[in-house]
Amino acid sequence: MAKLEVSFSPDLFEFYRNDDAIVVVIDIFRATTAMTTAFDNGVKSIIPVKTVEEAKEYQAKGFIAAAERQGQIVDGFELGNSPFHYMDAKTKGKDVVLTTTNGTRAISIAEGAYSIVIGSFNNLTAVCDLLNNSKRDVLLLCAGWKGRYNLEDSLFAGAVVNKIQGELFNELSDSAVAANHMYETSKGDLDSFLANSSHRRRLGKLNLEEDIKYCLKTDTTSVVPVLKGDRLVSMK
Amino acid sequence: MAKLEVSFSPDLFEFYRNDDAIVVVIDIFRATTAMTTAFDNGVKSIIPVKTVEEAKEYQAKGFIAAAERQGQIVDGFELGNSPFHYMDAKTKGKDVVLTTTNGTRAISIAEGAYSIVIGSFNNLTAVCDLLNNSKRDVLLLCAGWKGRYNLEDSLFAGAVVNKIQGELFNELSDSAVAANHMYETSKGDLDSFLANSSHRRRLGKLNLEEDIKYCLKTDTTSVVPVLKGDRLVSMK
Repeated sequence: MAKLEVSFSPDLFEFYRNDDAIVVVIDIFRATTAMTTAFDNGVKSIIPVKTVEEAKEYQAKGFIAAAERQGQIVDGFELGNSPFHYMDAKTKGKDVVLTTTNGTRAISIAEGAYSIVIGSFNNLTAVCDLLNNSKRDVLLLCAGWKGRYNLEDSLFAGAVVNKIQGELFNELSDSAVAANHMYETSKGDLDSFLANSSHRRRLGKLNLEEDIKYCLKTDTTSVVPVLKGDRLVSMK
Repeated sequence: MAKLEVSFSPDLFEFYRNDDAIVVVIDIFRATTAMTTAFDNGVKSIIPVKTVEEAKEYQAKGFIAAAERQGQIVDGFELGNSPFHYMDAKTKGKDVVLTTTNGTRAISIAEGAYSIVIGSFNNLTAVCDLLNNSKRDVLLLCAGWKGRYNLEDSLFAGAVVNKIQGELFNELSDSAVAANHMYETSKGDLDSFLANSSHRRRLGKLNLEEDIKYCLKTDTTSVVPVLKGDRLVSMK
């Protein structure tokens, strides 16, 4: 008997706040997918920070730092939030500082929760296994786009609801019902369903189609990044 | 070429704010349905106020005042937000002051928009005709439940998107795409789809099944309440 709720935007989080819950932060295009990829490729930790200035301060101290705004790498940084930036030796075994438009802000807003973990289609089943084993309330937090609802994060939230709802998770918010319905009625072809998403159009203009395809791959890894103190580490 | 967007909660309104848009305020269970019913039954105007205290002040001046909190009539008031409260001679030809948990707050948040109108399944086609004729941007504002997303308001937003999207309204937000998809895949049986909504369970406990059935009736009237100054009047 546990709650299973979805907040469609960080700006609705306060209405779902539940300090006993595990919060799953979701930013499919592309922050939480990139984080999952980084751990799958051996990064030691990721330190999420809210502002570009904070990222620069860490950079000045010698950290590898990554910054994305408006879908692009910020000037003065080598890395952004493309999963492909986290696949080589540059980040393996290292602590990486990261700030992104929506994802790192969502992590910051969730502070105070029992636990904060990172979800993406890449680690969908691993996240669901963790939630099932925990037997705690779950709050799925969509990063959205600058406060707005977005399709891909909500769709992933629906995928999680679809997989774990049942005897244990039997108290669904309306948002969880809606997300599940959307996933249930589109899971046969997520790619087509997302063809009209605003974020996809935005990334398409930036020639990021390969990133999009990668971000929609399901269960490529079993790592689950989890926040410990000021940084994400791997639970694998 | 116009925008068609949905804000799933008054607390997301700022991210969609568009002073050139017609805002449709939606609180299906039951404030905006009750407002539509009141005008269909000859109320002269409805003055929406945010607080119970404001409603009491008007009451002291001799106004007919209505107040709902937690789904029930507030002590000291004769009327709440059931559509059935607005069908008799008591309110016909009168100015009525109204405060509700979510609906009147949503109206207040939308202030500054080009125009604010009231939507419900009861006047669905009339609202859509008005929007089609206006050729302006449209923002569908769901009242939700205390900041949270709710199914019935989102479903009505989806019904509007479903009816008017096309050549004129061709710039849909992700929220409009999602609402439309939910309506499109459930319109054959809205009643079953909403069986699990949290608000329906809440009203069911209060023995308000008759209200729910009434609130889901489509196109029973062609009145469209519209805000003029501090009060709603009928556009019929």
